[in-house]
Amino acid sequence: MNRINRLFGIRYPIVQGGMAWCSGWRLAAAVSNAGGLGLLGAGSMEPELLREHIRKCRRATDLPFGVNVPLLHPRVEELMQVLVGEGVKIVFTSAGNPATWTGFLHGHGVTVAHVVASSRFARKCEEAGVDAVVAEGFEAGGHNGREETTTFCLIPAVRRATALPLIAAGGVATGEGMAAAMLLGAEGVQVGTRFAVCAESSAHEAFKRLCRSLAEGDTRLMLKKITPTRLARGGFFRAVEQAEARGADAAELLELVGRGRARLGMFEGDLEEGELEIGQAASLLGGEETAAEVVADLVGSCRARAEGWTADSGF
Amino acid sequence: MNRINRLFGIRYPIVQGGMAWCSGWRLAAAVSNAGGLGLLGAGSMEPELLREHIRKCRRATDLPFGVNVPLLHPRVEELMQVLVGEGVKIVFTSAGNPATWTGFLHGHGVTVAHVVASSRFARKCEEAGVDAVVAEGFEAGGHNGREETTTFCLIPAVRRATALPLIAAGGVATGEGMAAAMLLGAEGVQVGTRFAVCAESSAHEAFKRLCRSLAEGDTRLMLKKITPTRLARGGFFRAVEQAEARGADAAELLELVGRGRARLGMFEGDLEEGELEIGQAASLLGGEETAAEVVADLVGSCRARAEGWTADSGF
Repeated sequence: MNRINRLFGIRYPIVQGGMAWCSGWRLAAAVSNAGGLGLLGAGSMEPELLREHIRKCRRATDLPFGVNVPLLHPRVEELMQVLVGEGVKIVFTSAGNPATWTGFLHGHGVTVAHVVASSRFARKCEEAGVDAVVAEGFEAGGHNGREETTTFCLIPAVRRATALPLIAAGGVATGEGMAAAMLLGAEGVQVGTRFAVCAESSAHEAFKRLCRSLAEGDTRLMLKKITPTRLARGGFFRAVEQAEARGADAAELLELVGRGRARLGMFEGDLEEGELEIGQAASLLGGEETAAEVVADLVGSCRARAEGWTADSGF
Repeated sequence: MNRINRLFGIRYPIVQGGMAWCSGWRLAAAVSNAGGLGLLGAGSMEPELLREHIRKCRRATDLPFGVNVPLLHPRVEELMQVLVGEGVKIVFTSAGNPATWTGFLHGHGVTVAHVVASSRFARKCEEAGVDAVVAEGFEAGGHNGREETTTFCLIPAVRRATALPLIAAGGVATGEGMAAAMLLGAEGVQVGTRFAVCAESSAHEAFKRLCRSLAEGDTRLMLKKITPTRLARGGFFRAVEQAEARGADAAELLELVGRGRARLGMFEGDLEEGELEIGQAASLLGGEETAAEVVADLVGSCRARAEGWTADSGF
């Protein structure tokens, strides 16, 4: 048991990223039942839908689960009221200031983790009284930090910056990656991409198939003039690529993005017009699998890799 | 001993990156004398200067050292003639096709490693008969791959793609990073940034001081329309940033770069007009140190981290 296991009351220090359009109650419950920490992704939910998912998740597992709340959600206050009203005990906040909601959540007995992309924000988490920090590198899918710091450089930097329990995210999709993240200073990992394409993910099958087919270089961090976002190749990717190459400004990019594109791509499976958010680790994905198979493989190969290391490195 | 130690006849599987304007005979000899593999950086040398550095390096160490040759060097044929004429036995090639020179070098008894940024090029290395591959992630300083694949995602991908001895590069600046890189599948590491700023590096003191002061986000991969290059903040960085934001094309960027800027920045210490190439790991650097201190710290903390891991992870 390490601090992450104890903090969340979970068997393995593996958090399933609470991803928009992927992380409904089926995925979160499956991960929690397998011994990890499942997170509902409130980023793509209105308050009433979040309430429904919380209730269904609770019926599907007796084990701890949580909710990820991007703080830029237009109805964040209502989401927070739903969370505490439903008695959720674990919340991961992201895309905002950790000071804004931590006190409120603590007042309702909620354990709070916050997602950062820099050691500067990790220190802000500590000042805000957050219970754990998720440090997410450049290789992660979807919204991302402006510093472009990779997991390999970010985890040691955050480890030095704060004594808080530390979860590594961004590019962690295998047991080897989990072991490496922990050697870099993390005590747990948050896995997004691999869970986004597993059987219980609510993403569209066409999106999952696309993600499994991606090679290195098939995702890129784009839209840096508005909100840096890692996208997979497709029609919308090409449109953004062309606009950015000719120097399109923020207003033009906002208009190009429009509204509802992430739902269209990831939930409805429109690979041409939709926004497709996935991490670089997509190029490491294998075949179809369940969330329980993912957790078992992460744990098994992490342990095997770590145990074998001292012997076969032998320098 | 692992395959990297045996291949190069070195005590520790630590390669010092052969960096333009940083890696002369003093640095390479110091790293080799400390048990790593020192590399002369021929990228910033004309053939006669390379000959001089090879001879001085040989006088300064009895241990193996090598030369890095960027294959886009305008006088690459002459550099190769110098290498084999001087009896150099280890060459790292980069920035080009591994098939071009490997046969020639093997014909002269030279061990060849090639630097790649993708598993596709790692397979080309295997086809070309290269002896070892250096997989260099997005976080590395200077010239970089178009795929933007980070070390965390690249090493496992290359490990799957080829059975060749594998050296990880990009973001590796500490013993923890070395241990993590080896858990991801590497058998050795190439360290650039940390050696670029050490005492024996031929870089200008002003450049070294700047690098030690950089925070996360203070380097960025730029110039993607010509040759993707990771630069540190400074006057030239800002000029490129502005040009790229307004959509400058390749011709305009080439003119902006001009000639001699890397020498001006890194060797002559002009932080305003010069081109400053350094990796993301600059944000992890500590104080002044010698190459021998770097090697000893990498080895010591890598071993300590690896030995401690199984016990304190304990999940």
